[in-house]
Amino acid sequence: MRATLLHGPGDVRVEQVPDPQVRRAHDAVVRVVATCVCGSDLWPYRGARPVDEPRRIGHELVGVVEEVGADVRTVRPGDFVVAPFSLCDGTCVHCRNGVHTSCERVAWWGSPDQDGEPVDAAQGEYVRVPMADGTLVVTPEHPDEALLPHVLTLTDVMGTGHHAARSAGVGPGSTVAVVGDGAVGLCAVIAARRLGAERVVAMSRHAARQELARGFGATDVVAERGDEGAAHVRDLLDGIGPDAVLECVGTKESMAQALATVRPGGRIGFVGVPAGGPELPVRQLFDTNVTVGGGIAPVRGYIPELMADVWSGAIRPGLVFDGTFALDDIADAYAAMDARTVTKALVRP
Amino acid sequence: MRATLLHGPGDVRVEQVPDPQVRRAHDAVVRVVATCVCGSDLWPYRGARPVDEPRRIGHELVGVVEEVGADVRTVRPGDFVVAPFSLCDGTCVHCRNGVHTSCERVAWWGSPDQDGEPVDAAQGEYVRVPMADGTLVVTPEHPDEALLPHVLTLTDVMGTGHHAARSAGVGPGSTVAVVGDGAVGLCAVIAARRLGAERVVAMSRHAARQELARGFGATDVVAERGDEGAAHVRDLLDGIGPDAVLECVGTKESMAQALATVRPGGRIGFVGVPAGGPELPVRQLFDTNVTVGGGIAPVRGYIPELMADVWSGAIRPGLVFDGTFALDDIADAYAAMDARTVTKALVRP
Repeated sequence: MRATLLHGPGDVRVEQVPDPQVRRAHDAVVRVVATCVCGSDLWPYRGARPVDEPRRIGHELVGVVEEVGADVRTVRPGDFVVAPFSLCDGTCVHCRNGVHTSCERVAWWGSPDQDGEPVDAAQGEYVRVPMADGTLVVTPEHPDEALLPHVLTLTDVMGTGHHAARSAGVGPGSTVAVVGDGAVGLCAVIAARRLGAERVVAMSRHAARQELARGFGATDVVAERGDEGAAHVRDLLDGIGPDAVLECVGTKESMAQALATVRPGGRIGFVGVPAGGPELPVRQLFDTNVTVGGGIAPVRGYIPELMADVWSGAIRPGLVFDGTFALDDIADAYAAMDARTVTKALVRP
Repeated sequence: MRATLLHGPGDVRVEQVPDPQVRRAHDAVVRVVATCVCGSDLWPYRGARPVDEPRRIGHELVGVVEEVGADVRTVRPGDFVVAPFSLCDGTCVHCRNGVHTSCERVAWWGSPDQDGEPVDAAQGEYVRVPMADGTLVVTPEHPDEALLPHVLTLTDVMGTGHHAARSAGVGPGSTVAVVGDGAVGLCAVIAARRLGAERVVAMSRHAARQELARGFGATDVVAERGDEGAAHVRDLLDGIGPDAVLECVGTKESMAQALATVRPGGRIGFVGVPAGGPELPVRQLFDTNVTVGGGIAPVRGYIPELMADVWSGAIRPGLVFDGTFALDDIADAYAAMDARTVTKALVRP
């Protein structure tokens, strides 16, 4: 089959790799119908860490089950499935606690599982899915082309935006600011409104993303950053700032923005992978009673509730995709996202 | 009147100071019936910061209203009142949000208020209380001697322990570990049980405090610290650690203990004044989905609900007092707490 390999900074290629097969009784093999490029894929693409040898990349996929092992109970060949960005057994105490990303047998697309068996990455034609029962969620029916992008967001960005909002305690009547206008930040706007937020301020300097944020329910847009941005948000919200700030970037600047913006006693939900960000200033948190929560989103647990709203049309997160590429052209998708000419690229094998 | 002054490291003295008077229409003057020495008083006592000139000290008091200004509505002469460790107007947006410690007009015992008028500290015979309506809470009746210590804890340590538990999301069925066996940690045990925790592990190496913790409802005691302590707590709790860790010390070691002990997806409620502690490790929090919340406790808002339970006898936090001193002997109280021969000293003017 064909799959994407990262060879080095700025160098992704589609190459022939071995076809995945069922190796264990709990495995499934899934034909990838759609995958995408994640903002977090750009870190290795930009050379954040050296690439010793070409490696598989991609962690977002939806597709059709081709084959299952003898012990698989909840999915069967022909099912359309959503795969979250991490694999889990679904039965351990952490999965039962809703922290699927801390599963005792957690595995990651593109890395060996805990048996040492390689797991395919998502940017390819097929994947072997260990722990298929724990990992995969079957959709109500096969989505049509119009629904497909929305379903695809359930693998990562919609669940991650939801996790930011949940971690920040967003609920009916909340006032919220969202730091970051990438796909996760935009999904966080959807999530905040879905959970009942009354005011959602999207912090964005890009006209197209501002418009999309408003379409997703943002009540206000603030283009300034830093202290000026925080002051503008405060002005909009009783002079004190929002109850919740959703930090959807992961840089030093974005966390500083969140800390400068949230009101005393408020909560920051952070879901951007910390990229060289500073440690959190404990004395400032103490003095202001600001809570910081979040982390790598356990999206597996959120898929069922969010899928219901995707299927009903109540939320339309797939609008974050503003570029579609064939798998063979995935290098163009990376380049476009790297240049920020595309917010989120959908890729079709 | 007589009041306590800190002259320098290890040097507290009771001296004559001017009698407080009503200066503003929102003031009250309160005769102090009981005060105490706080763990946080030991930081300046130990010379954490240089003392340029003798300064008043103490921030916990209950007493009887002597006189009120013309605008005071909710307290009147003869009322017995509880004063939280910070003063607030009770009407600003932060007070309405329950973050009384961030009141727009916040003031602190022993420091000038926002009008620049000096406010007495608590370790003396009388105090002027600006913003009396916002700050003071009238008790159902004058407490007898037996009830007095329990009521006195509402000024700080009981409310602070409660804040740790609330900030960590403790509720029915929670599993909890408490780091710190000082008065706040012991009150946090009470608070956790009161909020419905099923298991409360007190981390303590002191026999008397272990016993008190058990009396307050701790189901388990762990004497080890560091990784060994964390492992022991995990062993007690399904091998994964508690849902909530209440960090009631404020040192580098105690926060590290909390981080090492909490389960993935769990919450740390921290209320110890950070004393040179490290910044919080954002990447570790991200990877484990651990939430950190808390801070300087807005105890004013907690007094009514906690007072109801003190009055009914449902909670008996005053048992943390294991030494009573006359005001003239307050230097002995400091020395005893500094030497850890007394957990919490009650002081009678």
